[in-house]
Amino acid sequence: MELSEDELIGAVRKVLSGAGADVVVGIGDDAAVVASGSGDTVLAADMSVEGVHFDRSLAPARDVGAKTLTVNVSDLAAMGASPRHALVSLALGDGVDAAWVIELFGGMREVADEHAMSIVGGDLSRGDGVVISIAVTGEVVPGRAVTRSGARVGDAVVVTGSLGAAAGGLALSRSPAAAEHAGTGWAKELERAHLRPVARVGEGQTIAAAGATAMIDVSDGLGIDLSRLCVASGVGARVELGTLPVAEALVDSEDALGIDARELALRGGEDYELVATLPEAAIDAAGAELRERFGTRLSRIGVVIEEKLVAVDADGTERPLDVGGWDHFAG
Amino acid sequence: MELSEDELIGAVRKVLSGAGADVVVGIGDDAAVVASGSGDTVLAADMSVEGVHFDRSLAPARDVGAKTLTVNVSDLAAMGASPRHALVSLALGDGVDAAWVIELFGGMREVADEHAMSIVGGDLSRGDGVVISIAVTGEVVPGRAVTRSGARVGDAVVVTGSLGAAAGGLALSRSPAAAEHAGTGWAKELERAHLRPVARVGEGQTIAAAGATAMIDVSDGLGIDLSRLCVASGVGARVELGTLPVAEALVDSEDALGIDARELALRGGEDYELVATLPEAAIDAAGAELRERFGTRLSRIGVVIEEKLVAVDADGTERPLDVGGWDHFAG
Repeated sequence: MELSEDELIGAVRKVLSGAGADVVVGIGDDAAVVASGSGDTVLAADMSVEGVHFDRSLAPARDVGAKTLTVNVSDLAAMGASPRHALVSLALGDGVDAAWVIELFGGMREVADEHAMSIVGGDLSRGDGVVISIAVTGEVVPGRAVTRSGARVGDAVVVTGSLGAAAGGLALSRSPAAAEHAGTGWAKELERAHLRPVARVGEGQTIAAAGATAMIDVSDGLGIDLSRLCVASGVGARVELGTLPVAEALVDSEDALGIDARELALRGGEDYELVATLPEAAIDAAGAELRERFGTRLSRIGVVIEEKLVAVDADGTERPLDVGGWDHFAG
Repeated sequence: MELSEDELIGAVRKVLSGAGADVVVGIGDDAAVVASGSGDTVLAADMSVEGVHFDRSLAPARDVGAKTLTVNVSDLAAMGASPRHALVSLALGDGVDAAWVIELFGGMREVADEHAMSIVGGDLSRGDGVVISIAVTGEVVPGRAVTRSGARVGDAVVVTGSLGAAAGGLALSRSPAAAEHAGTGWAKELERAHLRPVARVGEGQTIAAAGATAMIDVSDGLGIDLSRLCVASGVGARVELGTLPVAEALVDSEDALGIDARELALRGGEDYELVATLPEAAIDAAGAELRERFGTRLSRIGVVIEEKLVAVDADGTERPLDVGGWDHFAG
């Protein structure tokens, strides 16, 4: 590192200058101070580790920064909350230069600005490789946060947008033939989905207002995240595989990448779409509002049942849903 | 790791069960929800990296957990805030077992309980070695947070407690003769100061109420942290070295450890005492209240002047204060 700790903090402060009006004390003091609203405060944290969540030789710093904040904002979206503030802590290995760190914060700043939130503080430390740890705050009307635990038997299961493109982008980045496909429409879309996912903040608030009984974001895979929602709610779900909104670009990539698009849509992680349970009667209006306000599709993919997690094939065959997905500690 | 991610989260939830009454949604959802008060919210984050901040072979997991949360709480104390909530994110290398993680959270739980705060969420990830990243929230009366930037020429510079014992404990742990001194009174005190520092929360609130114009905690060393306060305030300070409250155990260890106690008191980090600037007239009452309520000493160590940072030796010689201290990125 060619700057001292205090010099690097100074450079980062410049990238992040111009905090929101509710920031009483911003970066550079022992702690930040923000005016507290009249609602409930929502708190979430997510960590990105070099070699696990990103590869510095493959992903531009700006994308890594943007994505790491997006992952955090997505947790707020899954509660139906409005993002407010973020704290960013970084461990940096010896080989990291200041320009990389400035770009990283530039990407975070882009996402923060999109959501009208402020990065108000954090910490810098030496480490092995890069670890990015973010904590975010958001706000909801008191009592209105949507948890994972309220799903009721008979509710419909819905999902925003489309699934599998981020996992397709990861597969593409690891494919020996990646260079050959670069520039094709589907390759660009998969790469963007992998490097620059979008948190469904407005959608989350809309679904919450429409009466969502439970909600979670798809970070580790639709199957495993839906199973977490079901466990928290003490229910099961029947998922109709034929109704999964498989990303079109992923379907287009099947032959080139040798992947099964429907399989990746079910098990692939990092799409940051929202899965929610809603009363059947609320789906149409919620779907229309999502389409009109955000251009985002809402798909009904199943129904909440008692206990079991069941997948229904296109031909009507039922089998237990093998959730798959990502376990950080799996061998 | 012998547990899956979800199993480990389940085990950690048990350690952290029994959250405060203001926790609307605790651990296990996408985010935590806490009822927001009527004050200003204070946000801080601090990261602990294995091999940089702690050594897993030397420090018990319970102490590492307790200290990492204490470091965060100390940032709240330095604003005069009341601790409220914490988010804990962990990156864990392959060699870490679940029992170590449970103990780590046990230590955090101890500190959280001491300060009536709740650990409400966070994140777990695979990594190289262990990285512990904590974010905390606290509350202050609106407009009353004490920043680093309000010191005025003529204010007295005060410090709580005593200095240098934590650095002495670190020196002891690295000393080839450590085993030989184990069990002596000073060795026990230095070790405790190094492994289990205490955040001066009540003291910070008392000093804030007494009219502190600026405050910072001693994390990297009295010299460098005081210089940060001075830079933020656009002032200097004259420090009378003879008045530094050098830890008694450190003085007792001088011969055995071959250290200069006064030097370590000035430059050693991790004491987590508070340095504040106060109007001269406010010192006596603040000192009396600290002594009565917390049994903590308040020492006047200097005065705020224009621009320069100056040290006055016991014989009255003035020289520029060489701040020393810890830069994470120094070669």
